[in-house]
Amino acid sequence: MAPSADVVRKTVDAYVEAVAHGTVDDILALYAEGATVEDPVGTEVRVTEESIREFYAVLEPLEQSAELLTCKIASNSAAFHFRLVSKFGENTFEVSPIDVMEFDDDGRITSMRAYWAPEDLVQTSGN
Amino acid sequence: MAPSADVVRKTVDAYVEAVAHGTVDDILALYAEGATVEDPVGTEVRVTEESIREFYAVLEPLEQSAELLTCKIASNSAAFHFRLVSKFGENTFEVSPIDVMEFDDDGRITSMRAYWAPEDLVQTSGN
Repeated sequence: MAPSADVVRKTVDAYVEAVAHGTVDDILALYAEGATVEDPVGTEVRVTEESIREFYAVLEPLEQSAELLTCKIASNSAAFHFRLVSKFGENTFEVSPIDVMEFDDDGRITSMRAYWAPEDLVQTSGN
Repeated sequence: MAPSADVVRKTVDAYVEAVAHGTVDDILALYAEGATVEDPVGTEVRVTEESIREFYAVLEPLEQSAELLTCKIASNSAAFHFRLVSKFGENTFEVSPIDVMEFDDDGRITSMRAYWAPEDLVQTSGN
């Protein structure tokens, strides 16, 4: 049975919050065991917890903010558009991908695929 | 080899235009042979041209407008958010799904999956 839309939405909200302000552990707690991450789509799919941790570890030390712009839920899946603003020293970068996730019955993420291209990452302030 | 982002974007633009104002043939011309359609995600996947034609035939007679809101392209795939406004007699309905498509080397659609829920379809005018 698919999780309810409320449960899916709660995970999406928690994910966007954790990507911006949480630790790698906060993010990983939202994933089911055996989950996969493909970010961006077309790159190698991360299939181990170690490789998924490595992916999010890059974000953990950054000063970030995030905002969920749109979220569409269908069955055990969600597609959502969000904005992530990251500070690297004096420079601020912004990217607004569309992520697609699938969820298990408990609303944990079983797969994540992020749609964005390098040119979608824009510098919004700094040198 | 993945089609270029320009080629993918051209198909997405043509799709949004054809869904609003085109014929079923206009839409089908954007699909590759053997393409699949799952709209919304979680419903039965349409795997024959006949069943895909049947799906779009419902839209053909309607007075509609559409607007592409966001389009993210990654490799041979795109995720895009668009608004479709449809008139049924005196009533106007609006839905803004996120569609995810995959493309062949020539930029023709090989799969389409639409993320939206029945509650995303809202009546914006009429009785």
